[in-house]
Amino acid sequence: MSEPLQLYSYWRSSAAYRVRIGLNLKGLAYDIVPVHLLHDGGQQHSAEYRGINPQQLVPVLGHGHRRLSQSLAILEYLDEMWPTPALLPSTARERQRVRALALLVACDIHPLNNLRVLQYFEQEWNVPQPERDEWVRHWIVEGLSAAEAMVADHPSTGTYCEGNTPGMADCCLVPQLYNARRFGVDMARFPALQRIEAACLELPEFDAARPERQPDAPEKAR
Amino acid sequence: MSEPLQLYSYWRSSAAYRVRIGLNLKGLAYDIVPVHLLHDGGQQHSAEYRGINPQQLVPVLGHGHRRLSQSLAILEYLDEMWPTPALLPSTARERQRVRALALLVACDIHPLNNLRVLQYFEQEWNVPQPERDEWVRHWIVEGLSAAEAMVADHPSTGTYCEGNTPGMADCCLVPQLYNARRFGVDMARFPALQRIEAACLELPEFDAARPERQPDAPEKAR
Repeated sequence: MSEPLQLYSYWRSSAAYRVRIGLNLKGLAYDIVPVHLLHDGGQQHSAEYRGINPQQLVPVLGHGHRRLSQSLAILEYLDEMWPTPALLPSTARERQRVRALALLVACDIHPLNNLRVLQYFEQEWNVPQPERDEWVRHWIVEGLSAAEAMVADHPSTGTYCEGNTPGMADCCLVPQLYNARRFGVDMARFPALQRIEAACLELPEFDAARPERQPDAPEKAR
Repeated sequence: MSEPLQLYSYWRSSAAYRVRIGLNLKGLAYDIVPVHLLHDGGQQHSAEYRGINPQQLVPVLGHGHRRLSQSLAILEYLDEMWPTPALLPSTARERQRVRALALLVACDIHPLNNLRVLQYFEQEWNVPQPERDEWVRHWIVEGLSAAEAMVADHPSTGTYCEGNTPGMADCCLVPQLYNARRFGVDMARFPALQRIEAACLELPEFDAARPERQPDAPEKAR
């Protein structure tokens, strides 16, 4: 448990952002290993990184000699290894709801809008930038509209997605709202999600995980 | 715990297929509520179904008055409510690996190739069928190549993805290989995955979950 932690991260990756929040909420110290997704033809495609993660994606968490992939599986691992404060609530039913919200973002929004997908459209199909941006916005609006319906007026919703403790769903929601703004999505449709986001970003654990606070963020983004 | 279970399912949905396997492995009885993704403009878009799942996707598990979405969150719920036989192994490190394999399929392959995405390409961008099929195969090959690397020769791999007990990763892998064949992917590149698939499909719990065994499968598919 005292083995050092390293996070292979890219400042603007929303999957890496999730894990940074989780590590911060657990109060764990970690070193950032920057993997630049655009430089050198994408450093995630290097032979060295492929040995760390055959999927050639960030994040990866290094814990001792282990190299752990998939942001949600990493958050579950953190919660099992360092149970307090918990990222998941105490009943199976509540945990199901939190995981479903997290997966809504992690399966049904983010992978559709990932860098590699947008590169495919540009390189294979010559899809112009405005149509690529429209695609991104389409899936964000689809997903966040469902999330808004699942959160607004739900009896389990509190200051955060589930009750009054920030957890796994919040770790996914906040990075996705950052992405939504980046692509110019009209945020007025998501009042409950925005209220939760604001509460999260008041916490130092979320604030320190923001893209613009990262050591590999370019000067102009800070 | 004795409340009845209903699975809102579509015979060929690979996310519903995952949950059918999980329910069968747990030995739980459940009723299938068919949701036809193509009939009536997509029954998942009806007002009634939107009330059940704002995401308008299958599967949903009904358990008493609860309606649970997201296949992996449902599998976790099954594992917590009915712990034996377990879908997840006993150590945090092994669980991380199993969840990462499951998420590799559930986040980084399947959502890219889902019906709604292919409908978007056809209806919004007029992408011809051969290019849509090529897109599907591209992400399957990307994802399964990484899964093959994570499974082949790994010390934790046994008869199944993790050891000699079928679990959550197998619940995701088998439906994804079904999809891969459907789209004509060259399977020879995935010997370890195919070996695990064959072992799984020898089990009655997997066999009964196959698309062609479902009550809503068309006659010609059986």
